[in-house]
Amino acid sequence: MKQIPNELISRFDKGELIPAIAQNYSDGKVLMLAWMNRDALEISIKTGFATYWSRSRNKLWKKGETSGNTQELIELSFDCDADAILLKVKQSGPACHTGSDTCFHRSFTFKN
Amino acid sequence: MKQIPNELISRFDKGELIPAIAQNYSDGKVLMLAWMNRDALEISIKTGFATYWSRSRNKLWKKGETSGNTQELIELSFDCDADAILLKVKQSGPACHTGSDTCFHRSFTFKN
Repeated sequence: MKQIPNELISRFDKGELIPAIAQNYSDGKVLMLAWMNRDALEISIKTGFATYWSRSRNKLWKKGETSGNTQELIELSFDCDADAILLKVKQSGPACHTGSDTCFHRSFTFKN
Repeated sequence: MKQIPNELISRFDKGELIPAIAQNYSDGKVLMLAWMNRDALEISIKTGFATYWSRSRNKLWKKGETSGNTQELIELSFDCDADAILLKVKQSGPACHTGSDTCFHRSFTFKN
C-alpha cells in the first residue's frame, strides 16, 4: 500500500468525505468531481481503478461498474493540507452519464 | 450577472458549500480546490477574480488578497448535477502557500 498522508487518515477517521477530482491524464481535461472515504481511496490504490463514495446512494461505487466507463489510475496526488485528492486517469468512454466527455460541460467564458 | 444554475442556487440556499476547482487555463494544471457559497460565486463572477469561502477562517477571501497571487477568471463551468464548479484561471505567481505552483504537489505514480 502506498503512503496516504496521516492528516488525510485523520479526516477519514472523523467521518469526513474528501473531494476527489478526476482529470484526464492525456489532455488535462477535468472530468468530474466525486467523493472518497478511506475505503474508496484504499480500493482505488489497490485495484488501480477509481472507486468513489456515492453520497446519493450511500455506498462505494467503482466508476464505470455499470457503464463500463472506468478510470484507470495513472497518478494520484494529495494537496498541501490533505483535504483534496487529484486523480490523473485514463478514462474509458465518456466520463459523464450524459454522454459528454466531461461532467463540466456548462461553461461561460470571461475572456479568450 | 451571468446565469447560475437553479439547482446550484438551491444548494447554496440550504447552506451547502460547493467545491470549486481552480485549473490553470494555459497548461491545464489543477492548482487547488477551495469552497464557494453563493456570495463567493457571485463576487467571483462580478469581479472576474476568484473569491472563495474559507472554512477555517469562516469568511470570504479573495485568492491572493494578501499574497498577490490572484486568479483571474477565464472560464467558469458547472458540472452535470450542479454540485461542483470548475474555474479556468490565469494564476499570478504560485497557487500554493508553500510556493509550489500547484497545491497538488504530493504525488505517486501508477504508470508512465
